[in-house]
Amino acid sequence: MDEVIAEMMTKILTIYEKEHGKVLTRDKYWGKRLQDVPEVMAYRPLIFEKGFFRDLPVMKDSQEVLQELSERFDIYIVTAAMTFRNSFEDKYDWLEEHFSFIPWRNVVFCGDKHIIKTDWLIDDTSYNLKNFSGTPLLYTSSHNTREDRYRRVNNWQEIREYFADK
Amino acid sequence: MDEVIAEMMTKILTIYEKEHGKVLTRDKYWGKRLQDVPEVMAYRPLIFEKGFFRDLPVMKDSQEVLQELSERFDIYIVTAAMTFRNSFEDKYDWLEEHFSFIPWRNVVFCGDKHIIKTDWLIDDTSYNLKNFSGTPLLYTSSHNTREDRYRRVNNWQEIREYFADK
Repeated sequence: MDEVIAEMMTKILTIYEKEHGKVLTRDKYWGKRLQDVPEVMAYRPLIFEKGFFRDLPVMKDSQEVLQELSERFDIYIVTAAMTFRNSFEDKYDWLEEHFSFIPWRNVVFCGDKHIIKTDWLIDDTSYNLKNFSGTPLLYTSSHNTREDRYRRVNNWQEIREYFADK
Repeated sequence: MDEVIAEMMTKILTIYEKEHGKVLTRDKYWGKRLQDVPEVMAYRPLIFEKGFFRDLPVMKDSQEVLQELSERFDIYIVTAAMTFRNSFEDKYDWLEEHFSFIPWRNVVFCGDKHIIKTDWLIDDTSYNLKNFSGTPLLYTSSHNTREDRYRRVNNWQEIREYFADK
């Protein structure tokens, strides 16, 4: 969900910009682990607050491509929500607003994704892709640019192309 | 979770008893699907309310046996919470109160359990056990007494015995 269909980082960068009156330039965070970007980590407490996940921007093209794919595949949204008790209702409502074509039966809030059995997993976090029994796809995010163990997808158009012949 | 470690039916029977000044006798519900028990169905709206899942009684011996098993197995709590948006926080807090030895990483709120990959699944609902890739165990509940497709466990002492040589 986060950094694949929901733009968490974009929200934080927008808050930074509003508070500091300037943008956090890409060289400050791109290619770095979030814990190594103090300007972002300063906002970490926000993600534990109610409401934070409710208004995240939708990742470009994710609705359109998932809607297309849902005609040929069973699509599940699997999100590591257990880290954030206060995010449950926000995530549920956000999905209902932006991805209403995905039935609630296909939504999973979990901690560890290692017990999930699907044919593919598109994720920005290599920890989640490790030991995955299906085919892992790494969705590019600022924190994972140096990861080279998984097939990478940079955006939803690339995902559309990847699945075109599947 | 519900009817395996959390006693949902018991809570409803207790509410019935308080409101009617008499108990709902076992012959009224045992062996029947819940939708065929009007005395229980009358309380169905309650389960969509905030707070309903927060104070369910804990199933007898489930804490003790799960604590024991957690020394030899990775225990996951997988609950079909997506049916009840208002249950998320209640279920999370209930687990933290009564099963704090199970880490949040091992808690899953889902709709359909068919994408869960574990070695065993203990569940009261045959729909969840159908197509399960591991070994299914049916936990006896009033609504499933006629189900005979799965190995049955009647209580947590039987679960303890079942896993003794595993």
